[in-house]
Amino acid sequence: MVRMSSFSEEQALVADSNSAFYRAFESLDMERMEAVWLRTDDVKCIHPGWELLSGWDPVMQSWALIMRNTQRIRFELQDVAVVVNGGIGWVECLEHIFDGDTLVGLAVATNLFQQNADGRWLMIHHHASPFTRRLP
Amino acid sequence: MVRMSSFSEEQALVADSNSAFYRAFESLDMERMEAVWLRTDDVKCIHPGWELLSGWDPVMQSWALIMRNTQRIRFELQDVAVVVNGGIGWVECLEHIFDGDTLVGLAVATNLFQQNADGRWLMIHHHASPFTRRLP
Repeated sequence: MVRMSSFSEEQALVADSNSAFYRAFESLDMERMEAVWLRTDDVKCIHPGWELLSGWDPVMQSWALIMRNTQRIRFELQDVAVVVNGGIGWVECLEHIFDGDTLVGLAVATNLFQQNADGRWLMIHHHASPFTRRLP
Repeated sequence: MVRMSSFSEEQALVADSNSAFYRAFESLDMERMEAVWLRTDDVKCIHPGWELLSGWDPVMQSWALIMRNTQRIRFELQDVAVVVNGGIGWVECLEHIFDGDTLVGLAVATNLFQQNADGRWLMIHHHASPFTRRLP
């Protein structure tokens, strides 16, 4: 779990939901992946290099495709930033993507969460993209 | 201005702010760019391939750098999706990037807007990334 000590209680809850998303991805288990998303057709997803996917079925079909074609994957997150405004929270983070102990990629992500009626923060948008360089 | 007829009044306002951001970028005028952003250190920005920039000064310095190094740029937007939830709205769109009449790039963007006290929707996060392929 990634948690920065300067997070408010609300930010920490959103950061926890963000961590739960990456743990679900690592599990390669569609039930766990579905459980971290808000069940609405407002969900959207942009995988690195892909076009925008919109709606529950297209987004979940993309995860099923990715998970079927992934043997194993592990994430370490860096620079996790969290903003909460009303019932919406968003996280930006730098994904270090590992196959076992081997770093195989870097990506930056914007993850958007909406608080549901039970108070849980569920993903409503994921945008990950290739990270190619540190700034000059 | 990009507006889909199925947008609610609120969605249309957010879509207008999204258009204003691209018009400001095209103007290569920092005053116009600053005017479309919420003046807070919560602003963040991910340019294609870049790392996350966080805070007013780093974000605006990046725009100044990009604009200084751009002779001209023009955007046509496709697949503009808008969701509004309370005082936060977000837009995903496919950017067709032109130099004059020549298409020079494609990018997908997630643009996040926050409504200020005057009711205006101002940008609080921009994440643009390379678009490389249509899905199979």
